[in-house]
Amino acid sequence: MITGANFIGSTASKEGEMILTAFNPADLTSFPEQFYAADMDEIQAATQLAADAFATYKSTTPTQRANFLETIADEIIALGDELVKRTCQESGLPEGRIMGERGRTCNQLRSFASLLKEGSWVNAIIDTAQPDRTPVPKPDLRKMQVPIGPVVVFGASNFPLAFSTAGGDTASELAAGNPVIVKGHESHLGTNELVSRAILKAAEKTGMPDGVFSMVNGGVEVGQALVKDPDVMAVGFTGSLKAGKALTKAANERDIPIPVYAEMGSVNPVVILPEKLATDTNSLAKQIAVSVTLGVGQFCTNPGLLISIDSKSLEQFAQALSQALELTAPGVMLNKGIAENYRENRRRRISNQAVTSTSEVGEEKDNEGQALLATVSAADFMFKSHLHEEVFGPFALLVKCQNATELLGVISMLEGQLTGTVMATESDLKDHAPAIEALQSKVGRILLNGVPTGVEVCAAMHHGGPFPATSDAKFTSVGTDAIYRFTRPICYQNWPHNALPAALQNGNSLGIWRLVNGERTKS
Amino acid sequence: MITGANFIGSTASKEGEMILTAFNPADLTSFPEQFYAADMDEIQAATQLAADAFATYKSTTPTQRANFLETIADEIIALGDELVKRTCQESGLPEGRIMGERGRTCNQLRSFASLLKEGSWVNAIIDTAQPDRTPVPKPDLRKMQVPIGPVVVFGASNFPLAFSTAGGDTASELAAGNPVIVKGHESHLGTNELVSRAILKAAEKTGMPDGVFSMVNGGVEVGQALVKDPDVMAVGFTGSLKAGKALTKAANERDIPIPVYAEMGSVNPVVILPEKLATDTNSLAKQIAVSVTLGVGQFCTNPGLLISIDSKSLEQFAQALSQALELTAPGVMLNKGIAENYRENRRRRISNQAVTSTSEVGEEKDNEGQALLATVSAADFMFKSHLHEEVFGPFALLVKCQNATELLGVISMLEGQLTGTVMATESDLKDHAPAIEALQSKVGRILLNGVPTGVEVCAAMHHGGPFPATSDAKFTSVGTDAIYRFTRPICYQNWPHNALPAALQNGNSLGIWRLVNGERTKS
Repeated sequence: MITGANFIGSTASKEGEMILTAFNPADLTSFPEQFYAADMDEIQAATQLAADAFATYKSTTPTQRANFLETIADEIIALGDELVKRTCQESGLPEGRIMGERGRTCNQLRSFASLLKEGSWVNAIIDTAQPDRTPVPKPDLRKMQVPIGPVVVFGASNFPLAFSTAGGDTASELAAGNPVIVKGHESHLGTNELVSRAILKAAEKTGMPDGVFSMVNGGVEVGQALVKDPDVMAVGFTGSLKAGKALTKAANERDIPIPVYAEMGSVNPVVILPEKLATDTNSLAKQIAVSVTLGVGQFCTNPGLLISIDSKSLEQFAQALSQALELTAPGVMLNKGIAENYRENRRRRISNQAVTSTSEVGEEKDNEGQALLATVSAADFMFKSHLHEEVFGPFALLVKCQNATELLGVISMLEGQLTGTVMATESDLKDHAPAIEALQSKVGRILLNGVPTGVEVCAAMHHGGPFPATSDAKFTSVGTDAIYRFTRPICYQNWPHNALPAALQNGNSLGIWRLVNGERTKS
Repeated sequence: MITGANFIGSTASKEGEMILTAFNPADLTSFPEQFYAADMDEIQAATQLAADAFATYKSTTPTQRANFLETIADEIIALGDELVKRTCQESGLPEGRIMGERGRTCNQLRSFASLLKEGSWVNAIIDTAQPDRTPVPKPDLRKMQVPIGPVVVFGASNFPLAFSTAGGDTASELAAGNPVIVKGHESHLGTNELVSRAILKAAEKTGMPDGVFSMVNGGVEVGQALVKDPDVMAVGFTGSLKAGKALTKAANERDIPIPVYAEMGSVNPVVILPEKLATDTNSLAKQIAVSVTLGVGQFCTNPGLLISIDSKSLEQFAQALSQALELTAPGVMLNKGIAENYRENRRRRISNQAVTSTSEVGEEKDNEGQALLATVSAADFMFKSHLHEEVFGPFALLVKCQNATELLGVISMLEGQLTGTVMATESDLKDHAPAIEALQSKVGRILLNGVPTGVEVCAAMHHGGPFPATSDAKFTSVGTDAIYRFTRPICYQNWPHNALPAALQNGNSLGIWRLVNGERTKS
């Protein structure tokens, strides 16, 4: 069933000359299939077909699109063991995790389907005419969100299902009414093809236009060509800061710039306050150890930075955390390159003379990474900005502050983050209010006495944050609000009732919440 | 009362060496005052003070900020005749227009005050915990919009009050909880100082922190320095495409890029469909003539492009419109440079051999511009993209199509626009559905049988549009939704009730609309 083809809409295509190979990071073997990187003609064919499909797809009803999304979820489940097995093989992640991630992927698709069926997400606002107003009559004005056109998705390696081919980006774009072109991730080529086939099957079953979904394989060149293609109207990306910045630059330099919604690096600081630390020393160490090593530290919300005030309790905490990390066996990472980078970045970090590693690393295979805790003083951390950068993998740096002033200083110097976590008692919160205030200004999500890994998919989630965590702190890539990355408002002035979209007609046949002359109402 | 100073918060400052002068475009005389362009130290002092003020200002209550905005409106009115007279003198606009614009400015301030008092604009979303959920408990998640920090405003020359110092950008930023630094527009330096003083007086009266508002004068260098300043978190701009692109480029090249919400050029196409044209030939000509010449064509929604299908009626329409434009005396433009540019761009446009001017231009003074209508065939228009560009002033280009296919072709080739207007009967709308569909994809606001000039300030307004009309089609610079340019969401996970902002606490003491576990409710 895996052929290595690109999909220009429903048409399999193998015109390119560059061949990609899929690997199993656990045993470092390669798969037999030959995957064809798309050539420039195939890329153009895919974007052109997407632009053509947009004319039809944007006019589908919310119910039709909801049906499409639910059918994708069904088709993913219908892939059965083949998908689960292949995803495990390509990612090195265990079956339990992949089963869970498959569930999350389907839930995401279904949650956008529910959003469409409920319908209020279009933010309909109606201000009716006042023809008798002086000095000038007030016109009838009605506004709602509409789709923008073809969107390119760059899937993430660390969530081969939930943030990849049929992940949150694809689900939110299709929900909004935009055709999607996925750039298949090189780290799970077979998984990507299986899921692409599921999406195409669902599109056919539900009568969606050909071109509503395309998938092309390839490397940096293919990615750049997609972003520069004039038919592409926006980009969703999850990956490294370097790649995200390169794509954003290309998008900004177009004749008509387009937005790149890039979710990039984050060290997800955890601020451990004194009373909490003294009270729960060992349980905190245990809780953080689990979070640091979860998925071999390859979550975007992995807590890579711990900040606390030096004390006997902190010594004990560091020791307990070090022991817990040492006891966690090295894990197979997503691919050999990621494992190599992790070990190299970890080595560089601890070779800095200001940094002391407090746990031991045992023997690791080429494809593995073991967790490590290192410590640094606040003074050194503040003056060495490269220590603020993410080490992708199960590495945590503990910043030891002398006092509350230094703690505030460290937090104030942090870059933008997806998350910030506070470990605190009630009186800690009062005693360190300025530090917590400073942390809030740096993050998209702030947590109390929990761990940042585990990103709930719901309306209240915000998975975004100030640069460099993401390219635009206004938007989330997880949860139903992710749809707003791929829409824009349009306003109709004095438009005839029967030519308005249903969401804006007087009768409100969709039964959605609207803001009518300043009142929120369903009538 | 006009001293030529910059305002670093409430402190007047004249440290710079470059002197600017205010002009009266009507009689080309200069005003006696010396205005001091800010130097780099003054700019840094203003942004630093704004960053300091943010710590306090962001914690003000919505009621306090509403009071501040309403007091600004009161203080602007309290400036009385002095402001009206000076604004007329500096802009060349008539007193009636400036009185109206002052009213609009105060209404904008008051409408944001109302928005704050009602409170639901923060988009509070609450998903409560499910501690018993398996396999993992669901955390408590609560999200709302928060301010982002100091914002720089570049006012527009064409609305010296409503889109300048205390205009929609400033009002929306202050409403959101962000300190503002205004770059005073060189075309109305005295007006800017008077209004700045009104804002500072209101800040003092309502107990706002020093630095909540600053104003610096200067040219391109001052503007660039403001955009590059690390304390600045966003920019609001209304002006030319060239200046907007330069500011956006500077903002993208920062270590930490920031958004520039730039409202730039637009030709605001008016599509005149056959049956409507035949029915209302002369009244359409009259209606469009008024819109083209309103404010000497210096509105961002000025209809600079008319698109129709050739016919006897179109000849008659063109003749009637030409006559109406000829009968409109040349008007004093906002400044001499704008008048010179207008006449030069108009000359270039009609010197193109594909373009025929159909009305006559009489004698114009250096500071004046007379309206002109020119025509071009659709075939020529489609292949000469420079004809698509805006001529800022009372110039309209009529594109004559052979048939409906050409009409669709012309519309499909247009760039992004603030507005698109359709002049049509009911059967026109049906007969030209594809053209109207194409027009919708190009514009932020679509109108039927009206004129695009006259931008209503209300919740349903969208004054934005695809590039190059604005830098981000998602956002509006007119109406209460303008506030969302200057906020971002933050999500609190398992945060203690008493440490949450009031908008997210269980009790909903603010009585605002919220989305609680998927239900829209005030309880």
